[in-house]
Amino acid sequence: MTKEVSAKTVRTPASTANLGPGFDTLAIALDRFIEVDVEVSSSFEVTSSGYGAGVPVDDNHLALQVCKFVLGHSNVALSIRSDIPLARGMGSSAALAVAVAVACESDDPLSVAVHFEGHPENAAASLYGGAVAAASVEGRSVVRGIEVDSELVSVLVIPENELPTHKLRAALPKSVLRIDAIENLSNSLMLALSLKDASTIERFMFKDNIHQRYRSQFFTESDTIMDELIRSGCIGAAWSGAGSTMIGFSTRSHAKQVLSKVKRFQEDRGVFHQVEVVEFNRTGTVVQLA
Amino acid sequence: MTKEVSAKTVRTPASTANLGPGFDTLAIALDRFIEVDVEVSSSFEVTSSGYGAGVPVDDNHLALQVCKFVLGHSNVALSIRSDIPLARGMGSSAALAVAVAVACESDDPLSVAVHFEGHPENAAASLYGGAVAAASVEGRSVVRGIEVDSELVSVLVIPENELPTHKLRAALPKSVLRIDAIENLSNSLMLALSLKDASTIERFMFKDNIHQRYRSQFFTESDTIMDELIRSGCIGAAWSGAGSTMIGFSTRSHAKQVLSKVKRFQEDRGVFHQVEVVEFNRTGTVVQLA
Repeated sequence: MTKEVSAKTVRTPASTANLGPGFDTLAIALDRFIEVDVEVSSSFEVTSSGYGAGVPVDDNHLALQVCKFVLGHSNVALSIRSDIPLARGMGSSAALAVAVAVACESDDPLSVAVHFEGHPENAAASLYGGAVAAASVEGRSVVRGIEVDSELVSVLVIPENELPTHKLRAALPKSVLRIDAIENLSNSLMLALSLKDASTIERFMFKDNIHQRYRSQFFTESDTIMDELIRSGCIGAAWSGAGSTMIGFSTRSHAKQVLSKVKRFQEDRGVFHQVEVVEFNRTGTVVQLA
Repeated sequence: MTKEVSAKTVRTPASTANLGPGFDTLAIALDRFIEVDVEVSSSFEVTSSGYGAGVPVDDNHLALQVCKFVLGHSNVALSIRSDIPLARGMGSSAALAVAVAVACESDDPLSVAVHFEGHPENAAASLYGGAVAAASVEGRSVVRGIEVDSELVSVLVIPENELPTHKLRAALPKSVLRIDAIENLSNSLMLALSLKDASTIERFMFKDNIHQRYRSQFFTESDTIMDELIRSGCIGAAWSGAGSTMIGFSTRSHAKQVLSKVKRFQEDRGVFHQVEVVEFNRTGTVVQLA
């Protein structure tokens, strides 16, 4: 007997990982969503709109792979609507994997996502919402929630460039200076422990030494964009995951001003990346039965 | 006009730093104390009992240096009683610096202690109590408190060996593997975010890659002691600061059993280090006016 899924709609938020120093560990969910309708079908069908609509539906399609992994078959019809851009460091594939795993009624959607993603922080944020620290320990995901001040919002600069995630990872050095490693762990702790009160967050807490500088060769504009976010009034700025999106952290009361200043800086440089104030998501993945 | 201090007694707790992965950042205050009575005097006088009683009272005496630094003179009489062993990784000098700075009514006893210690985590724990993450940022100390489950206690193995702190620091390598650095930052985050609920703390969260293994050449028994703490029922174990004390983390309900098992392991090996269940301190430095 094959497992049959109930018809439903699953809504899963995007996520931003690393937050600067918290490499492969810290992530926060973002109020951008992927929605997946699922119902039983005689064969795999998928219709997509929004980001990812152009991805070929072949055996490599992540949604198909997740269905097969969870159900042991792919007799489902999926309708996917996404406003999470692909390969831009906003956790689109983790969000899709979580959404489809939940749609297929997996007992452990986080493990399903980790099976395809390799590490759990984006998927954990997409599943649970809010900020998380997450680790893979002997094949098991361990996740801890982190309180985030409701006054804190993100200002995202989302370039058109898609960055090659595998190249960005391959560019990382085998070893790092001990003092750099210690500063990263210190900054990531200070940041994680300050997120609950925006007034206690300081710029140094976003400083990273172990990945951003090695990745900037693939996106030489990254430092300029982060600098513009800071000069526009953000508390701190970082690569969102492996980019190309750059994330600024702002209080809600400053966000509008930041937005217009960043746009003005871009105009002055003659570039026009998408710039947007995006709330941190608190709800995580939500299921609505049809 | 020289500043005169009011007669008072200051009581400051010991502290354990690093907690495994949180090198130079994490610390927790311990219920072992240094007490300092202070009163005005025509010249510097100090009487000491307990640990540190044998330290020569010359210009290098930390208490004298702190008095001069805070007051600009040293016309005070101090009576110091300490049950914090020296050079055993229990933050005795940070505790003394904090206690004397508070006794001398410094506006910023943490900065005073950092001036003499170099980094703030031990001093911050001794000043505020509880667990902290602390960083020095451009000469300024930044401290964040971390909630600790009241069910969590420490089991300390306190050897007679004093370890040479400067040699232990000099033994650290200039660079570390990136994957080791990332595991440290991940573990330290998971630990800091789990301390509030002892049932969520796991052994991997104490795993360090960037200091303990390089220091064990100076205390080859360290791995054996940590292993005995684990086998006796501790959740995790680590070097306390730069040793020689090793700290196990246990629930209160298991602590007695851990204590007797550790002692039995030591008997079997023919060693008899001091072993003690010590509560984490919650109060920090307390002042009582005479």
